[in-house]
Amino acid sequence: MDEFDLIAALLADEPPLPDWVRTGPGDDAAVLRPAAGSEWVMSTDTLVEGRHFPAGMPPDLLGWRALAVNLSDLAAMGAEPSGFLVALVAPALDERWCRGFSTGLRAAAGDSGARLVGGNLARGPLAVTVTVTGTVPAGTALLRSGARPGDALYVSGRIGAAVAALRQLEAGPEVLAGLTLATVPEALRAYLLPQARIGLGLRLRGRARACIDVSDGLLADLGHICEASAVGAEVDLEAVPIASGVAAETAVSGGDDYELLFTLPEAMDAEPLQESGVPLQCIGRMVVGEGVRLLDARGRDVAIGERGWSHFR
Amino acid sequence: MDEFDLIAALLADEPPLPDWVRTGPGDDAAVLRPAAGSEWVMSTDTLVEGRHFPAGMPPDLLGWRALAVNLSDLAAMGAEPSGFLVALVAPALDERWCRGFSTGLRAAAGDSGARLVGGNLARGPLAVTVTVTGTVPAGTALLRSGARPGDALYVSGRIGAAVAALRQLEAGPEVLAGLTLATVPEALRAYLLPQARIGLGLRLRGRARACIDVSDGLLADLGHICEASAVGAEVDLEAVPIASGVAAETAVSGGDDYELLFTLPEAMDAEPLQESGVPLQCIGRMVVGEGVRLLDARGRDVAIGERGWSHFR
Repeated sequence: MDEFDLIAALLADEPPLPDWVRTGPGDDAAVLRPAAGSEWVMSTDTLVEGRHFPAGMPPDLLGWRALAVNLSDLAAMGAEPSGFLVALVAPALDERWCRGFSTGLRAAAGDSGARLVGGNLARGPLAVTVTVTGTVPAGTALLRSGARPGDALYVSGRIGAAVAALRQLEAGPEVLAGLTLATVPEALRAYLLPQARIGLGLRLRGRARACIDVSDGLLADLGHICEASAVGAEVDLEAVPIASGVAAETAVSGGDDYELLFTLPEAMDAEPLQESGVPLQCIGRMVVGEGVRLLDARGRDVAIGERGWSHFR
Repeated sequence: MDEFDLIAALLADEPPLPDWVRTGPGDDAAVLRPAAGSEWVMSTDTLVEGRHFPAGMPPDLLGWRALAVNLSDLAAMGAEPSGFLVALVAPALDERWCRGFSTGLRAAAGDSGARLVGGNLARGPLAVTVTVTGTVPAGTALLRSGARPGDALYVSGRIGAAVAALRQLEAGPEVLAGLTLATVPEALRAYLLPQARIGLGLRLRGRARACIDVSDGLLADLGHICEASAVGAEVDLEAVPIASGVAAETAVSGGDDYELLFTLPEAMDAEPLQESGVPLQCIGRMVVGEGVRLLDARGRDVAIGERGWSHFR
């Protein structure tokens, strides 16, 4: 089975490409037709075996994760997904693995609009780099840099379930072997099947002043907003929606949540945003100054050692 | 030195971003503004240490190669380069390495218009995935699928110098250690400093019926055109411009040439294309049928064992 057979396996059962894909997989490059008046949003993220996912991850779960974490970056920009490219490096591949991987990609794409338009296969230690593109009406992308003192700070969903699931997996990685998309236990879903908040991102356009997805950890990612916006932030620890069974300090320092963290002008009603179906919680405010303060119920500083991870620390 | 310092090193000395980059590195994603009426061309390619480049490759040469082989895909589409993303996986990095890598990227971009707009750093075995984007006026992208029987077949530059250089490097990899962009010896340039034929690709728009870049080997890549266009091809081996000191059979089966292979309607004058400054040679023709025939000076079939490489063969 050569590279071209494997590519065929990856593309098996793909429904016909939509009109905006002028040229899909199989040429030197993909050709996409952006909607008039749109801007192009693009991001890339690599998952390396043993570092960003456990060895032995079933291919459908890897496919899901590789796409979902990239779609989360589009969500954080308020972008509507369009084409994505997959650069897969693997020591060896077979058709079954490719079909599973492809099933995972397709499941993660769901009805988001994201379509596989090209990619690359190479031999080497297992790693997947997905590059996603999306579109926004000109000038509406959600940046990290728009937060202002007085803004209310919100987060979607619950924080910490992914880090709890990851610890469980690290303690007993053998549970992975038999899993498929359909059989992931509830306790592992937050880590193994992250949900990109595309719908919420779209609703945040024209509303949120700043937005980021929580991948490095809530406090670390909030720090990125503060730095880009040249403001400070105060987080009320008791207001943060923490997953059950996880210590609050662990949750806000962990990562892989792929929830959206965003600021709204002080007086703005968050009610219309609730229609995205994802719970939202106001967890603090942006202030004059710099850096992130974490406050307890009495407004006293809470000290936390570890604040998110940096890949080359 | 953490991830953010390394990113700063990668971006050091970058000139200001052009207007079409609405948001560059540093947010969740890049935001680009396509020209009205343009289509978007995108491609991704991974280089894995020990497979696509020798271990010990100096960072500036790696940066050059990682971008150039991707720009070559844009050239083959007739696209004008725009933003590119770099996903770098490395076991460890330092500022000096990052600055060298960045120098190589910038040198390969040259005045092509390609600009670094984002990327990702991760720890793992050394591999670089670059994703390039470019634009074409709507409907003008050069595909593999447009060749017709009777078309004349052309190739740019010389074939085989890269495979010769690679063999020299494999025999004496220690020569790599001291090299920089400025000191690559002539004999190694074709492999270490591939030139994407962007200017030629732009001139081929509206002229070539089919186009591909020679990366897997001339015969293998011509086979891709034949398959996509449902035609056959005849190559006159004596007409192929072969690099000096390389056997013709080795040259047409090797790879990494990054020249353009394209077809023109039979009666079309290739003269205006010469203005791109790259030598062009007519090496055969497209015919009714399928597959590639290699012919000697008397029109007899030449048998060649190895026809290009496939990554998972």
